[in-house]
Amino acid sequence: MAWILRVNMRDQSVKVEDVPGDYELLGGRALTSRMVYDEVPADCHPLGPNNKIIISPGVVTGTNAPSSGRVSVGGKSPLTGGIKESNAGTPVAQKLGRLQIKAVVVEGQPDKEGPWILKLNKDGGELIPAQELKGKLTSEVNEALFKDYGEKAGVINIGPAGENRMFMAGVCFNDNEGRASRYAGRGGLGAVLGSKGVKAIVIDEADAPKVDIKDQDLFKQGVKKLAEGLRSHDVTKPGGALNSFGTAVLINILNEAGGLPTRNFSEGVFDGAQKISGETIADTVNQRGGAGMMGHSCHPGCLIQCSNVYPKPDGSEHVSCVEYESDWAFGANCGIDNLDHVAELIRLCNEYGIDTIEAGVTMGVAMEAGLVKFGDGEGAIKLLQEVGKNSTLGRILGNGSEFTGNAYGVTRIPTVKRQGMPAYEPRSVKGIGVTYITSPMGADHTAGYTIAPEILSVGGQVDPLAKEGKIDLSRTFQQVTAFVDSAGYCLFIAFAILDIDSANEGMVETVNGVLGTNYKPEDVPRLGAETLEIEREFNQKAGITSVHDRPPEFMRYESLPPHNRTFDISDEELDSVWK
Amino acid sequence: MAWILRVNMRDQSVKVEDVPGDYELLGGRALTSRMVYDEVPADCHPLGPNNKIIISPGVVTGTNAPSSGRVSVGGKSPLTGGIKESNAGTPVAQKLGRLQIKAVVVEGQPDKEGPWILKLNKDGGELIPAQELKGKLTSEVNEALFKDYGEKAGVINIGPAGENRMFMAGVCFNDNEGRASRYAGRGGLGAVLGSKGVKAIVIDEADAPKVDIKDQDLFKQGVKKLAEGLRSHDVTKPGGALNSFGTAVLINILNEAGGLPTRNFSEGVFDGAQKISGETIADTVNQRGGAGMMGHSCHPGCLIQCSNVYPKPDGSEHVSCVEYESDWAFGANCGIDNLDHVAELIRLCNEYGIDTIEAGVTMGVAMEAGLVKFGDGEGAIKLLQEVGKNSTLGRILGNGSEFTGNAYGVTRIPTVKRQGMPAYEPRSVKGIGVTYITSPMGADHTAGYTIAPEILSVGGQVDPLAKEGKIDLSRTFQQVTAFVDSAGYCLFIAFAILDIDSANEGMVETVNGVLGTNYKPEDVPRLGAETLEIEREFNQKAGITSVHDRPPEFMRYESLPPHNRTFDISDEELDSVWK
Repeated sequence: MAWILRVNMRDQSVKVEDVPGDYELLGGRALTSRMVYDEVPADCHPLGPNNKIIISPGVVTGTNAPSSGRVSVGGKSPLTGGIKESNAGTPVAQKLGRLQIKAVVVEGQPDKEGPWILKLNKDGGELIPAQELKGKLTSEVNEALFKDYGEKAGVINIGPAGENRMFMAGVCFNDNEGRASRYAGRGGLGAVLGSKGVKAIVIDEADAPKVDIKDQDLFKQGVKKLAEGLRSHDVTKPGGALNSFGTAVLINILNEAGGLPTRNFSEGVFDGAQKISGETIADTVNQRGGAGMMGHSCHPGCLIQCSNVYPKPDGSEHVSCVEYESDWAFGANCGIDNLDHVAELIRLCNEYGIDTIEAGVTMGVAMEAGLVKFGDGEGAIKLLQEVGKNSTLGRILGNGSEFTGNAYGVTRIPTVKRQGMPAYEPRSVKGIGVTYITSPMGADHTAGYTIAPEILSVGGQVDPLAKEGKIDLSRTFQQVTAFVDSAGYCLFIAFAILDIDSANEGMVETVNGVLGTNYKPEDVPRLGAETLEIEREFNQKAGITSVHDRPPEFMRYESLPPHNRTFDISDEELDSVWK
Repeated sequence: MAWILRVNMRDQSVKVEDVPGDYELLGGRALTSRMVYDEVPADCHPLGPNNKIIISPGVVTGTNAPSSGRVSVGGKSPLTGGIKESNAGTPVAQKLGRLQIKAVVVEGQPDKEGPWILKLNKDGGELIPAQELKGKLTSEVNEALFKDYGEKAGVINIGPAGENRMFMAGVCFNDNEGRASRYAGRGGLGAVLGSKGVKAIVIDEADAPKVDIKDQDLFKQGVKKLAEGLRSHDVTKPGGALNSFGTAVLINILNEAGGLPTRNFSEGVFDGAQKISGETIADTVNQRGGAGMMGHSCHPGCLIQCSNVYPKPDGSEHVSCVEYESDWAFGANCGIDNLDHVAELIRLCNEYGIDTIEAGVTMGVAMEAGLVKFGDGEGAIKLLQEVGKNSTLGRILGNGSEFTGNAYGVTRIPTVKRQGMPAYEPRSVKGIGVTYITSPMGADHTAGYTIAPEILSVGGQVDPLAKEGKIDLSRTFQQVTAFVDSAGYCLFIAFAILDIDSANEGMVETVNGVLGTNYKPEDVPRLGAETLEIEREFNQKAGITSVHDRPPEFMRYESLPPHNRTFDISDEELDSVWK
């Protein structure tokens, strides 16, 4: 039977609770957002005693449904001041699913000094003092905990940035090989966990009851349809674009579209794009002899396998993984065209426990402020190390792009709701701009990935520069995404379900199979909309209204080369997304 | 004829404009808030090209109406993100009034490097490059400009903090003796002027036409009544409380009431209160031989004369002035009981061009973060010097208390709308708490000074600890204050006009005399309400709503010694102030 684990850090109690009836059909983002809405006072200080962290695997997570190893982390974001859900692909998600854990709730704040680790198995949980892990890097935590608890354990942890309550701190999960590398990165939820004194959560899956599947036949049928879709779509199939080159295959594509934000969103084309492209990553991996380093998967049962392990010149491992967003954030966005520098910057993020997107956008703003020159990879590495040192400068940078911009009086700050923009330029790709601007999460490409039709001709084909139709496009994508994030699927199944009807049916059938529901594909946007509604209501109570559904002002008056467009979708049009 | 001077820093144009009909009856805060509302896009970046600075003397300012030398500065605040009006008492206000200048508008942003000075006389204005003043302290600017333009000039300037666009930078005006010491301090408007490249404004009053008084007899009658009131009221009369001990006479009074915020708002009583009290200031001034250093006036024609000049041990001048708010901010709030240290901290604020309240509250938060120990005056001085150095740490501190608290993960941050709270504890003095929380300006005691009836038995007598009646009390005080701020009177006339009907009539008659209007004393709250309405509308468009009319969360769950109360006025009650 599904259960909730509630951990109160104030009285150090750990309780097993039944799942309330109205939570039974929820998982992943739908559940974390609902529980945050129900339990967290919207006006609380995100790092104070009244915020909570909710961790929930998706509905089908832990089954053999393809690419479904996602886990959502929710809470009030120290970065945006609004509700936050951030999810990661990791075997840990599947362990939680198989343990039939609906949610782990961490609440309250300890009186004494921590940190603690939360140990969790099929019977419940236990808090264990872990003073020896204080200040440790994420890889050090994983090494220590795998040693103590065995290699089959699942480990969730925060790096020093989370302990130091920095707004860009993420929550780190181990990958397939135990690396501390898979992140629910966005929005600073690692700082919330840090503010509660929780350094790590260790999951023991022994004798897990497995996911309760109400209709096995329907579920199996759904898995088959979805798997076939993923295996046949050009983007997601084995040997396809994502599998061969990783997500960084997008570098050249966005650069050609004039939509690759360059040097802190001052240009849309990066002259060094080729040097940091997915193609160059694949070449480098092959040249340096890294067999099996491309087409890496972040959790068992992923058919897409878009991750990678980037090697040093001697062929040994440098970091996993150099994804599009991280590559762009420290590459084009900082004017850096050296992949080894980019890899090192990503490695530091993983070690400190910070979001690579926020860190890269912050670096761009810091370069704009003159702290380091655009293009100076070694300078950027030194600057990022300040975050690890928890120096005065590190405390500025560690709080993200808007905070850093404000510290230095910069006005070109590419954020929405104080969250740094990802790797697509809103002035060149208008639909994704609408998503950044109107998502309750702040600027987030995963909230409604209109890049599919705007750039990749998936799920239709629309002109990225045109504003027409982008309101409806973004809304629908955001709604469907909220459902996908709750089902527990990787967002990248979107390519297949957008283009292949049977794959889409398959996804819904797997959910129906697990839950015993009778959802139709056409119900998906409505179901997603319910989650978005709750998230927006929370935000309103937290003081985030339609006035915050706005682009950064500079995008209204600065034209972006090469297309020389401003962001021209009006406030009224933006408001129509949710009205 | 009244006129507006419009300075565009982008094209470096300086234009004289007529006063639109609907601005004719406005002055001071009523005019700055109206023009900000009319001209500044509410969602602009406060330090970007679309924000403006509006400087406007009060309606009667420049006449011989007593204690009426006030000038308002308005704009969108970098600190609060909302509308801001901050006013100062200074002879400069009177010069502007006598020149019949309704408003100086500074807009746009220069392409080339500044700074400039704006020279202003009866015929208009002129921009003069002033590279030589770059980075200069406010006293250095005043010295240079009085040398160049003569001792009769009026000087408005910003210190290095404003040039460096720090959120706590104020706008500085000279006092009676030419000191750079009178501040429109709150809300960071100095940073806005800095973002426009304006280092100083020099006013040449030669051949000024004087204030146009429509009904001289009525005006004279009003002056007489008001002056009689000020001369007879115990608080404001010559030799009365304010005149004898300065505003810091409040230290002992608030301390006895358990409402003197101590060590970053963690206690309501300061054991070192006596050592920093107004009585001790007066004793120290007398002992050190500073004749004429108490009972100092900030502009000609002030009957109250509550300012002071604080001497060093050798009797020479240290700083003007040690006011209650500044004294408290660096004293009780930082646990510092050494007046010489407090004086030096105030002097540094004046030199750097920063708000003493925000700087002191920031220091308290920095002490909470452990940067310096509570009570360490010398440590505090060193820390504040970082702001002057524009160091990394200085850039954190220079952005104020909320920014500093966020930089260091502090949750006890005593702010409303990101502005630091002044010297009265909301948990012990509930009415002023309502003012802090519901004023469109952010936490600001001058926005509705309910201390009068709550602590001083002026304008009635109410229990400071009780919540009953405080909503109506604060609302009325805020409305009347908005009128007083627009008329150009010092807020301290409130003591007389609250207790003495004829003084109140006199105030209204002086305004009617100047404007030719026929306002009645009972119209005052309504007229003030019109300004508040505009300010709140601007804020709503800037994303600041009733959700931001809330106390800092910790005041809801932390009881304050010695009364051990939380702030118990509910959200619904707070919302009823403006509904």
